[in-house]
Amino acid sequence: MARIPAGRARLTPREARGLFRTGLVTPTSGWAAGWTQANLIALPRDRAYDFLLFAQRNPRSCPVLDVTEPGETFASIFDGDLRTDLPAYRVYRHGEQVAEVADVTSYWRDDLVCFLIGCSFTFEAALLEAGVPVRHIEAGTNVPMYRTDRLCRPAGELSGPLVVSMRPIPAELVPAAVRITSRYPAVHGAPVHVGDPAVLGIADLDRPDFGDAVEVRAGELPVFWACGVTPQAAVMRSRPPFAIGHAPGHMAVTDARDSVYLVP
Amino acid sequence: MARIPAGRARLTPREARGLFRTGLVTPTSGWAAGWTQANLIALPRDRAYDFLLFAQRNPRSCPVLDVTEPGETFASIFDGDLRTDLPAYRVYRHGEQVAEVADVTSYWRDDLVCFLIGCSFTFEAALLEAGVPVRHIEAGTNVPMYRTDRLCRPAGELSGPLVVSMRPIPAELVPAAVRITSRYPAVHGAPVHVGDPAVLGIADLDRPDFGDAVEVRAGELPVFWACGVTPQAAVMRSRPPFAIGHAPGHMAVTDARDSVYLVP
Repeated sequence: MARIPAGRARLTPREARGLFRTGLVTPTSGWAAGWTQANLIALPRDRAYDFLLFAQRNPRSCPVLDVTEPGETFASIFDGDLRTDLPAYRVYRHGEQVAEVADVTSYWRDDLVCFLIGCSFTFEAALLEAGVPVRHIEAGTNVPMYRTDRLCRPAGELSGPLVVSMRPIPAELVPAAVRITSRYPAVHGAPVHVGDPAVLGIADLDRPDFGDAVEVRAGELPVFWACGVTPQAAVMRSRPPFAIGHAPGHMAVTDARDSVYLVP
Repeated sequence: MARIPAGRARLTPREARGLFRTGLVTPTSGWAAGWTQANLIALPRDRAYDFLLFAQRNPRSCPVLDVTEPGETFASIFDGDLRTDLPAYRVYRHGEQVAEVADVTSYWRDDLVCFLIGCSFTFEAALLEAGVPVRHIEAGTNVPMYRTDRLCRPAGELSGPLVVSMRPIPAELVPAAVRITSRYPAVHGAPVHVGDPAVLGIADLDRPDFGDAVEVRAGELPVFWACGVTPQAAVMRSRPPFAIGHAPGHMAVTDARDSVYLVP
């Protein structure tokens, strides 16, 4: 199996996808800096309207970057194979996760519509460049993600909780973190919450629902962004017959420059 | 029939809708300043996915503000009756306009999904406040709208040209007009073009496809914004069995403050 290259931030999307296609399984935070990363949710065509409406009604957590034609394995911003070129996938039947695999070719169906949803890993390069530390990149781990007690606006048969990612930010850098990320609404934009996790119904920061816990140091505040795992939480809650998602933190590295999604 | 009140800019959305419900037919530019106006396109449920995907793929012309449940006659941002509370409607069968009426109650169907699409009338109050003149408000006419030769990205069975609205702007105020409107991406945002209409395939500014022609004076440039009549142009081109739209310029006055859609 391929190893994580030391220069992973400088890889092109094509190079990164090539490593994932040949079996490398790793979170993609810190990879291919300057390129947009995306969450994947694939649903049968007869569930696609519900999901697209769910995304329209929950734009903070579900900013849609691209939608495929049924059965297609590429997207306009992803010139690779959506079945193999993400590091890892989760397969759901009736809301139950039935597999976590590095290749979903054997699960693929001709009626699957793939939705690519903006991922907050995209703005991490801009945070680092501004001197805002990103703990999970420093630690070499996955970002911590939490189910909250905030419910998304339902659409058709889809409903579920808002999922958030968390980054500990030194208090004096919180304004910079808000300012920088608010310029990227297509990859979740500004934080949804700063500080006390209990306000979001998160009981214990050390026990994330997805990804890895990170240290919150003295003088730091936990800062929470809407997360593109929200669609998978809706799948788990709403139990459509079939769905495929990326494994949380193991994203689609797209061919879209992050500057495309930067607002003035 | 009710008359156009002199203080139309100061009406509440409820007051404006009440006048339209009792039969007043008039373009809504300049009405209920500070409140968001919206285009309407209503399609049968089995065409709703195609349209929502069309909107996702053409966000400049089709920024979706709200989507109803099938058959519903109100929306979360429109606490009125979508069948009666717009000044005028157009009804289409297989892409042909079969009626222009002030009330579509007799045409309503239980499977209709209504999409409310942001309208550039919304940012006109901000333009006026900044000293940027809006000619069609001065003239008391409808805004001129044009089919362009730019094709939208198709979705399913929906395709068609980009439609634009045009406002003549004194050359020295073009930067202000761009700056102000770019802060309202949900109601079409920045212009798509400044200057020569031929670049958009518009042969004659004096012959708009929708609305009324306005004078372009010496020292002014025609400035073009994406327009929410684009969905109706797609209906005319793609010929779905049934559709209802607003009569161009005769908008849904919503209960959403325009500040909701203002980006920093």
